[in-house]
Amino acid sequence: MIGIGSGDPEQLTLQAVRVLSGLDVVLVLDKGEAKSELVDLRHEICSRHIARPYRVLTVTDPERDRAAADYPGAVRDWYDARADLIEAALRDEVSPGENVGILVWGDPALYDSTLRVLDRVQQRGTVELTHEVIPGITSLQTLAARHRVTFTGVGAPVHVTTGRRLAAEGMPAELDDVLVMLDGSAAFAGLDDPDLDIYWGAYLGMPGEVLVAGDLQERKAEIVALRAEHRERHGWIMDSYLLHRRRA
Amino acid sequence: MIGIGSGDPEQLTLQAVRVLSGLDVVLVLDKGEAKSELVDLRHEICSRHIARPYRVLTVTDPERDRAAADYPGAVRDWYDARADLIEAALRDEVSPGENVGILVWGDPALYDSTLRVLDRVQQRGTVELTHEVIPGITSLQTLAARHRVTFTGVGAPVHVTTGRRLAAEGMPAELDDVLVMLDGSAAFAGLDDPDLDIYWGAYLGMPGEVLVAGDLQERKAEIVALRAEHRERHGWIMDSYLLHRRRA
Ligand SMILES: C[S@@+](CC[C@H](N)C(=O)[O-])C[C@H]1O[C@@H](n2cnc3c(N)ncnc32)[C@H](O)[C@@H]1O
Ligand SMILES: C[S@@+](CC[C@H](N)C(=O)[O-])C[C@H]1O[C@@H](n2cnc3c(N)ncnc32)[C@H](O)[C@@H]1O
Repeated sequence: MIGIGSGDPEQLTLQAVRVLSGLDVVLVLDKGEAKSELVDLRHEICSRHIARPYRVLTVTDPERDRAAADYPGAVRDWYDARADLIEAALRDEVSPGENVGILVWGDPALYDSTLRVLDRVQQRGTVELTHEVIPGITSLQTLAARHRVTFTGVGAPVHVTTGRRLAAEGMPAELDDVLVMLDGSAAFAGLDDPDLDIYWGAYLGMPGEVLVAGDLQERKAEIVALRAEHRERHGWIMDSYLLHRRRA
Repeated sequence: MIGIGSGDPEQLTLQAVRVLSGLDVVLVLDKGEAKSELVDLRHEICSRHIARPYRVLTVTDPERDRAAADYPGAVRDWYDARADLIEAALRDEVSPGENVGILVWGDPALYDSTLRVLDRVQQRGTVELTHEVIPGITSLQTLAARHRVTFTGVGAPVHVTTGRRLAAEGMPAELDDVLVMLDGSAAFAGLDDPDLDIYWGAYLGMPGEVLVAGDLQERKAEIVALRAEHRERHGWIMDSYLLHRRRA
């Protein structure tokens, strides 16, 4: 499982390059996404770094029942369905001893379910496999680098959360730094705290990168407008941000 | 400012390698550390990847007044003293147009003060400089990769904090995942929660890497003993861990 960074092909580590070069098979978990730039990036990485002839196995993600009353149950079923597909692909289309790479956006540890699905496949014991995880640069690291800011104050904690949770819970009063991902509905715009700065970025590391930083209350309308405009133009958007509380 | 990863020279990104290859000067912020493995790693990286002849400027960190009554004031003074030294090195020993690299352990955004010190130098306006930040793989990502775990549950937050804070505040009841760094005194051993797993690692990515995972209450004595043993053997230790709350 290879973390490939979050948009810039130069974010690959030397370790990822070495492991890629020895692959026989690339397993692509296709999210049926319209984000063709993301698919292109994967192709570019594979064709540039895989040394031998390689096969691409595409596994299309099953539909997830997002309307299910039993949410944890629906997630479990969806994991099982994905595990079924990966298990079948490994069993039927990979020979013993072959090296299979799964390319994961950013780092496999951060808001990615591939590792949990692979654990399921392994627990079933029907396919013999060992796996190794290669870390990759996350979108949050690109965000901080582009804005030249740190996540953490001196000895202070940082919290990483989703847009949905930020919308429900607000900016925790005891925290000065919160990193937000997976925000479909501009949760930052609902915050009224007068002492927050926002460091926002979309398409980080990619040609269409957009950055905005400043006082949240002064910049939020502009960011909401930029999000709408770019989502319209690209057909999709990926953005993340850091909220930082200014202290006297 | 180049994030170099947290121990394994293969964690360098292609971007870091490209930027390294164009350096004229490496500015080393010497923490006067006994950790010779860490110094060796920096040398190895420079000599392997810097293409042209390069100079090394070593700036020795000033003493920090750790006993000061005014803690924020002492930190401020220490930042100023470091900014003085970097300013002088850049002014007196670097020619206009030269490329200077500062190698930062892990990622510059995570518990590292170099960026804040450089901001100070820049604000003074006495040396003309532009700077760029290259993200690097953090020790937390290496930790997760080696244990093959994720930081985040489905849509759940993760908290990154220090050993000192964990000791003072305990494991926050509303969180399932907490990442801990900078823990000089085994704060995990003071937690009594019966439902926590720990994923612990020391010298991550380095030849002496040690990993332990399991139920916190069952493993904590073993980890405390391992820490003492390895710190004794190496003369220093760097470790981090993930605490994960098991849910029914
Ligand atoms: C399912 S998560 C995967 C995160 C990924 N594993 C990582 O390490 O960055 C997807 C979220 O990551 C963030 N993201 C990923 N790539 C991004 C990019 N290039 N620019 C901005 N945000 C990005 C967005 O918040 C998006 O909603
Ligand atoms: C001052 S912080 C710097 C963190 C660094 N910027 C990063 O991205 O990992 C130092 C702390 O990082 C953690 N750390 C750094 N390198 C490590 C390694 N190789 N193994 C385990 N922990 C490490 C330890 O918790 C240590 O106390």
